[in-house]
Amino acid sequence: VHDRSAIAGIVPPVATPLTVTEDVDRAGMGRVIEYLLGGGVHGIFVLGATGEFPWLDDRQRATAVEAAVDAVAGRVPVIAGIAEISRRHAIANARTAYAAGADFVMATAPYFGSMAVEQGWILEHFRAIAGETGAPVMLYNVPPWIADISPATIATLAELDNVVGMKDSADFIHLQDVLARTRGRNFRVLCGIEGHLLGALLMGAHGATPSSANLNPALFVRLYEAATEGRVEEARPMQEGASRFVQELEAFPSWFSLIKAGLHLLGLCGPTVAGPLPALTADETERLRAILVGYGLLS
Amino acid sequence: VHDRSAIAGIVPPVATPLTVTEDVDRAGMGRVIEYLLGGGVHGIFVLGATGEFPWLDDRQRATAVEAAVDAVAGRVPVIAGIAEISRRHAIANARTAYAAGADFVMATAPYFGSMAVEQGWILEHFRAIAGETGAPVMLYNVPPWIADISPATIATLAELDNVVGMKDSADFIHLQDVLARTRGRNFRVLCGIEGHLLGALLMGAHGATPSSANLNPALFVRLYEAATEGRVEEARPMQEGASRFVQELEAFPSWFSLIKAGLHLLGLCGPTVAGPLPALTADETERLRAILVGYGLLS
Amino acid sequence: VHDRSAIAGIVPPVATPLTVTEDVDRAGMGRVIEYLLGGGVHGIFVLGATGEFPWLDDRQRATAVEAAVDAVAGRVPVIAGIAEISRRHAIANARTAYAAGADFVMATAPYFGSMAVEQGWILEHFRAIAGETGAPVMLYNVPPWIADISPATIATLAELDNVVGMKDSADFIHLQDVLARTRGRNFRVLCGIEGHLLGALLMGAHGATPSSANLNPALFVRLYEAATEGRVEEARPMQEGASRFVQELEAFPSWFSLIKAGLHLLGLCGPTVAGPLPALTADETERLRAILVGYGLLS
Amino acid sequence: VHDRSAIAGIVPPVATPLTVTEDVDRAGMGRVIEYLLGGGVHGIFVLGATGEFPWLDDRQRATAVEAAVDAVAGRVPVIAGIAEISRRHAIANARTAYAAGADFVMATAPYFGSMAVEQGWILEHFRAIAGETGAPVMLYNVPPWIADISPATIATLAELDNVVGMKDSADFIHLQDVLARTRGRNFRVLCGIEGHLLGALLMGAHGATPSSANLNPALFVRLYEAATEGRVEEARPMQEGASRFVQELEAFPSWFSLIKAGLHLLGLCGPTVAGPLPALTADETERLRAILVGYGLLS
Repeated sequence: VHDRSAIAGIVPPVATPLTVTEDVDRAGMGRVIEYLLGGGVHGIFVLGATGEFPWLDDRQRATAVEAAVDAVAGRVPVIAGIAEISRRHAIANARTAYAAGADFVMATAPYFGSMAVEQGWILEHFRAIAGETGAPVMLYNVPPWIADISPATIATLAELDNVVGMKDSADFIHLQDVLARTRGRNFRVLCGIEGHLLGALLMGAHGATPSSANLNPALFVRLYEAATEGRVEEARPMQEGASRFVQELEAFPSWFSLIKAGLHLLGLCGPTVAGPLPALTADETERLRAILVGYGLLS
Repeated sequence: VHDRSAIAGIVPPVATPLTVTEDVDRAGMGRVIEYLLGGGVHGIFVLGATGEFPWLDDRQRATAVEAAVDAVAGRVPVIAGIAEISRRHAIANARTAYAAGADFVMATAPYFGSMAVEQGWILEHFRAIAGETGAPVMLYNVPPWIADISPATIATLAELDNVVGMKDSADFIHLQDVLARTRGRNFRVLCGIEGHLLGALLMGAHGATPSSANLNPALFVRLYEAATEGRVEEARPMQEGASRFVQELEAFPSWFSLIKAGLHLLGLCGPTVAGPLPALTADETERLRAILVGYGLLS
Repeated sequence: VHDRSAIAGIVPPVATPLTVTEDVDRAGMGRVIEYLLGGGVHGIFVLGATGEFPWLDDRQRATAVEAAVDAVAGRVPVIAGIAEISRRHAIANARTAYAAGADFVMATAPYFGSMAVEQGWILEHFRAIAGETGAPVMLYNVPPWIADISPATIATLAELDNVVGMKDSADFIHLQDVLARTRGRNFRVLCGIEGHLLGALLMGAHGATPSSANLNPALFVRLYEAATEGRVEEARPMQEGASRFVQELEAFPSWFSLIKAGLHLLGLCGPTVAGPLPALTADETERLRAILVGYGLLS
Repeated sequence: VHDRSAIAGIVPPVATPLTVTEDVDRAGMGRVIEYLLGGGVHGIFVLGATGEFPWLDDRQRATAVEAAVDAVAGRVPVIAGIAEISRRHAIANARTAYAAGADFVMATAPYFGSMAVEQGWILEHFRAIAGETGAPVMLYNVPPWIADISPATIATLAELDNVVGMKDSADFIHLQDVLARTRGRNFRVLCGIEGHLLGALLMGAHGATPSSANLNPALFVRLYEAATEGRVEEARPMQEGASRFVQELEAFPSWFSLIKAGLHLLGLCGPTVAGPLPALTADETERLRAILVGYGLLS
């Protein structure tokens, strides 16, 4: 699926199921992806932050991409995260992911802790990845964790043939600015903030990567459909509902652990997160169960 | 005009014209307001940040409100800023502004430099102002300059009879959250970020307080009309145009000085800003003139 | 006492006692100052942040300076804070304070909330205050609440005849840089961070303005004496003790309220702080009492 | 050299020389270390941030440690950085480095971009590394790039037999607090901020890890000697000189590139930095040459 127009709709950043020894659980990945496709999602983004990419080593990452490609089996596009701190390492990741069958690869800006990174470095980082791999590349913008990729940098990169789109988790003005600067290029923009979803679609975004869709894919698929079919009056309370769902989840101490615990409650995989991320406590897990029951995801 | 439903549409935070000795220029205020009303604006907000309230003393502030009320002469509502660091001082400001004929008063959270302020203090600050003055009060949220008023705090305050609305310059999710939590109360929400304007109106906001409307009121009035009349396809490029206009202005070193220099170029008042705000240089002023000519505001 | 060499030693930023109606309590100010002088302090700084200057209006401030000057009665120098957001207002404050008998006046950089302020504005702000008042001016550096005054700006200002010193609450490198750049000018540097006190004195600072000295002046006076008399081995555990004292106080929710509550426990003035600052709860007050008893300040 | 008392004095974070293809240059590492030992340094810290650890992969890191151990040949202790985002990866790094002959290993807090990390996670991260490897572990504190390790967390970790010390690049109060809380445990504290060096030693720190000592080791060795031999009056201007040296270097756009360019000018290794770090321009290199000549490091 190398046609960039396939990048659209709800594309969750799928969690990476782990065994208790923190090896990638291929069967668990298969079950989670089946759950998401059953909820109607339009693509799978493997090795995003929700997929715990920062805490996985090269072998774990390669296995995760393979498992996702196998499970999806061509039904929807697979976008593979390849983010790394160094250029050399990110390029190696891209080659591995592309060889494993990912349709698109997605890299962040280079980063080290909260060290400031200049737009010039970011531009060269993506240019090198696109130029040396030839793979269809997406930009993964996730400030403030990683330096914000400026709309001007994005517009420059969008002129490259194989820079095909982005996931934008920056503020609403940034997203609108990107849309304005890339209009006419079929540069695909996925909104990375659940709360921006309806507004972003109304402004022209092509889809979204809601992390909480791991637990409730249908909620976001329905909202996407209402928005793209012009049923705005209906979509507005659906957006409110989606925002409230996210707010309830954000009350937990660690997002990554929460998503894994939720998938465990749904019977899809184990609750293990990569250390030093902490597991949910028993109390927190019960609180989460009540939320999932309240949304009809569990009985 | 004490009916809160009058709070709607484009309500610019009008600049406060100053003489060279930094006294309030009443005649200049009259000309600027006539220019804004000529552009079709639906209200006047005097003594916002653009009105340089932080740099004006009590006498200057009182004069500015009087001048605005006189100039508007009841044609549209007048909202008067009363922000101060201390509760006692903000209450005194509110009494002065209300006595001078302002229809609504608008206070920020208490603040001192970038000192952290807790929601509990904010709640009590507004409660005291509303309770002790009886005036129709609006909340003025302008993070990160001043501590963000949380949606929960706003929802609590919106239950008070004379807390009638707010100006929200926080992020897009904050604005949506406020709308969701105050639905059904006729709590009036004005969007304070130019780039959020169309999105905010589509989500249910009642209007906006674009600072750059001081120079180009009609641009925002047309956008507001397109959005509220359901012409979304038409409104989207208008929003892009408005965002671009703001971006061009934001390239100048001081926003306050820029607005004043623009009003001076338009022949409405002098370019003086309150010290230590710097004046625009001659070069910057010429650059600004070219922008205003480009938008057809000057010939 | 206009000789700048008098600026040395422990110079606490004295709290401003308030009546329940938030008027300045002149008698209370007298008792607090007597307590501080009894503890051996070498100067009084009235209307610092601990003196709640941001929350006091012009009349309250004038009264506070008068009360401090009267109480000190020439025994040690009086430094009066004159900080304000605008230049015009700061200059007016300086004139009032100097006329009331303050020996030195001390201004912050201009500020408004956490708005960024450029060094050029800061330079002009202080130049205007020094030039238009002729008073002996000190610089009051209190980042991150108010924009950091750079060592280069300070060095430029230190060349003016009536810019005589500063209170530096910036980081340790900033303080050292100021000392290096002003060496040979008798530019008086008071350290504003309790935890830096011994290090700062060893590096050449002239004194300090410890806020917690309001409650425990002798602790800091003894540390100052040990450091300046070359008893470094003895001073090191005294610094540890002073740092621990501050840490215990910093565990309370509001510094200003804590200092006032402490002075109330010591029988010197009422616990009232300017709204919207909150009062200590009864529980917090009892916890504070235990601390003061532990340090032998109360029995 | 497993006696922790050997951790003292000037221990530069040695740069990692790279070939043009970004492989580790073992011979270059040998020359740089010889230069540092010739300048009198008391230890070598390989794979600190200055050693570009974030941009090197596992193979490059292993080679760098081996090269450093070989070059030092037991003359001074070798501390090897093992920082990684995940616990599993950091433990693997520690085993590799310790097997390669490093005397001590040093880990940062876990991190991912500027994501907030709780003290509980940090504590468990270090506990796992110390417990599972048995190696003598040091804590590497480098805020704000990576989450600050609190003095309380450090004190808890210092109770473990094989947690032997730390490098503290936090603020001066943090360093003093660590010294106060670990007194009597022979917990070795190296100061990571050049500008804090003299103050830190006077307060009881055991040494320092000045990054700029890569270019000018003797400057810091002399300052260390003056401070530890009680010649404080002499040390103070030496500290000023060291601070000025660092300030001159900090004016360059990228610290890493600057250190490499300097080592290249000194004839010790190539100027290559790991992508996406940028190389110095020719102009910048000439500016750097002039600085090195000015300090007598080049002729």
